[in-house]
Amino acid sequence: MTSDDTLARLAAVIESRKAGDPDKSYVARLFAKGQDAILKKVGEEATETVMACKDGVREKIVYEVADLWFHSMLALSVHGLTPADVLAELRRREGLSGLEEFAARKAQSRDQEEKKP
Amino acid sequence: MTSDDTLARLAAVIESRKAGDPDKSYVARLFAKGQDAILKKVGEEATETVMACKDGVREKIVYEVADLWFHSMLALSVHGLTPADVLAELRRREGLSGLEEFAARKAQSRDQEEKKP
Amino acid sequence: MTSDDTLARLAAVIESRKAGDPDKSYVARLFAKGQDAILKKVGEEATETVMACKDGVREKIVYEVADLWFHSMLALSVHGLTPADVLAELRRREGLSGLEEFAARKAQSRDQEEKKP
Amino acid sequence: MTSDDTLARLAAVIESRKAGDPDKSYVARLFAKGQDAILKKVGEEATETVMACKDGVREKIVYEVADLWFHSMLALSVHGLTPADVLAELRRREGLSGLEEFAARKAQSRDQEEKKP
Repeated sequence: MTSDDTLARLAAVIESRKAGDPDKSYVARLFAKGQDAILKKVGEEATETVMACKDGVREKIVYEVADLWFHSMLALSVHGLTPADVLAELRRREGLSGLEEFAARKAQSRDQEEKKP
Repeated sequence: MTSDDTLARLAAVIESRKAGDPDKSYVARLFAKGQDAILKKVGEEATETVMACKDGVREKIVYEVADLWFHSMLALSVHGLTPADVLAELRRREGLSGLEEFAARKAQSRDQEEKKP
Repeated sequence: MTSDDTLARLAAVIESRKAGDPDKSYVARLFAKGQDAILKKVGEEATETVMACKDGVREKIVYEVADLWFHSMLALSVHGLTPADVLAELRRREGLSGLEEFAARKAQSRDQEEKKP
Repeated sequence: MTSDDTLARLAAVIESRKAGDPDKSYVARLFAKGQDAILKKVGEEATETVMACKDGVREKIVYEVADLWFHSMLALSVHGLTPADVLAELRRREGLSGLEEFAARKAQSRDQEEKKP
């Protein structure tokens, strides 16, 4: 099964849950609380990913990155976006030139931000 | 292009770059600096995702989530893990029961953490 | 030097710099870029604090928490707030009752957020 | 009252609580769970600070920065450090030269991190 299929199917599950009963569904509960509750989870799972990597426990790393991706999919959904949009952006950067373009853009933006001219 | 395994291909690109010339590749540069530099980017991109969602600018949201997923793939790679491991974990949770199990586990862990008995 | 109001003096330095020359001052440069640049640093320094604590290197922990507090003071300044406002809030919570009230409020909010009724 | 006094007193309250009864004290409960629970809160409160600033609600900003500083004080305490250590580091950077030194060091470190030579 391809990653696009897994994420597309998970996105469909999320859509089917988001307007559901907050008492029965974790996804419905987060959507009922609103975007801030979802974004707070994104920040939280990023921190847990960082800690899991520092600990070097592989099973925990996989678990936390799954949490991070899952909650960022909820954030996408708030704005009518899907994993397909993110995968399209990643494909755009995928080639050698794409990744280097990415790095160059980041470095340039750092320059403006951090350095004296 | 639903059947295209975007993440697997991107992971292969990352593997091919990580031992490359830090002067020529963004990926090689981050790996040369070590895990902390990669984890710092994970935290940074999570914050940028949160800000993009608060702004509600869809193009920016897609861009920042792509950055977040990309850098979490670098973190996976440090530990010999791949997006396939994360997708397998997400599939495990995919069914109704899976997502509810996830929610229940999280709520239980919160109980132990935050509440008086 | 316990009676020295370090944070108040640092806040005054920040105020004196923020409208300065972005080419000459780090603070002026961040303010010239706008709030997002400052908030991005808050997220970044929080991640670095987490990593420093996981490493357990005391000098690094102090350095990163100083960075975190410094950049959150810049965020306060964007909104015309000062460390004195934060210290007043902390004093309000300082007594036994205050900290427990804090904990109780957090636990209550968790309940609403994470648990089935 | 000076900020050093407020933070020093709060630090003393934290020390008096940390070995207490986890059923009665929020601080004791977090210390009983261990450093990761504390660090997770640091990441969480940083995200909430970012969101409060994006919302521009002053009362909420003060509240979230207080949470952020409070939980970073718990992290300091894990390593036998106090706010006085952080304030000393901030005083070290306080003068014009100090802040510029700080900015210069950051920019230099960015150069090594992000840019091609």
